[in-house]
Amino acid sequence: MTRSRLTPEREAEMYEAVLDLLREVGYDALTMDAVAGRTRASKATLYRQWGSKAELVVKAMRHNKPTSVHDIDTGSLHGDFRAMLDSTDDCQMEKDSALMRGLAQAVHTNPDLHEALRDLLIEPEISGLGVLLRRAVDRGEIRADNPALGYVVHMIVGAFVARQLIEDRTPDRAFLTDYLDAVVLPALAA
Amino acid sequence: MTRSRLTPEREAEMYEAVLDLLREVGYDALTMDAVAGRTRASKATLYRQWGSKAELVVKAMRHNKPTSVHDIDTGSLHGDFRAMLDSTDDCQMEKDSALMRGLAQAVHTNPDLHEALRDLLIEPEISGLGVLLRRAVDRGEIRADNPALGYVVHMIVGAFVARQLIEDRTPDRAFLTDYLDAVVLPALAA
Repeated sequence: MTRSRLTPEREAEMYEAVLDLLREVGYDALTMDAVAGRTRASKATLYRQWGSKAELVVKAMRHNKPTSVHDIDTGSLHGDFRAMLDSTDDCQMEKDSALMRGLAQAVHTNPDLHEALRDLLIEPEISGLGVLLRRAVDRGEIRADNPALGYVVHMIVGAFVARQLIEDRTPDRAFLTDYLDAVVLPALAA
Repeated sequence: MTRSRLTPEREAEMYEAVLDLLREVGYDALTMDAVAGRTRASKATLYRQWGSKAELVVKAMRHNKPTSVHDIDTGSLHGDFRAMLDSTDDCQMEKDSALMRGLAQAVHTNPDLHEALRDLLIEPEISGLGVLLRRAVDRGEIRADNPALGYVVHMIVGAFVARQLIEDRTPDRAFLTDYLDAVVLPALAA
């Protein structure tokens, strides 16, 4: 049997379509039919290539390179936070937020998805922040034993999700800038 | 045509079963078949009584009385927070957390559901906290112009959701006690 291969460009295009659908309808409502329709591929091709919806979604997430830890070092935590926000844009934030929303229930029951979400969105955030925070401790801006150090990612990821859940608004740079100044920096400075 | 009526007890039992299913599988994966199976009712009864899945879920959420704003007034914000946590338990927190998770995607596309979630879980939290915070401002514990005052619900709801999303752990009283001491109180004291 000849197995037709997809070009890398076609594969990338299909992964992008899967992520778009995931943001629009969420994991549970995403069907292979919808993916086939959006990508103009046959369902037979999808199943031959990826085997299952879960595998297709995990591959699509892994194909999307996480934001690299930028070489941010402005000399102050306040400046580093600002530079971090400058390295993204409102559109990307909206996309990440929609992805988290679309996966919130599914990751709870599907360990592979949870691992992909961690790798794609959460771990890069944790390790990038870790570098900034260690430098701030070294500079004496934050006490090394400040208990808020263990919750910076909770504060930030939480702000993302809560903005959506409480206000039904997308987190944007203006909101996050204000939140960092009002909540995160004061808690770390205590 | 005679329309059989459900007793209030039977109705309450069915609403509880709907909320349990919602916590287990989430809104999108919840089917009228599953509700019928769990409650030993016929699908015809469900549709005759509630018309649609969305209406059944909204009614089930509204039937569940939100926690009333307790008469908490210990004389300090720290004490009030502790008393608030003492008025709930880990099991209730786990249930609320599962409900938020199960509804995160659906509320984004269904305004009735979003309103029910706000009324049931979010507004009571906001108004209850508002009372405690105003008294803390009056006592001089918090400056009236502290910008963190506008984000207390974000911090707390955020901690709930992030605990789940980052660590795949259920928020419990021990976690929230530590988070309040490490993050919320220092940000408010700034």
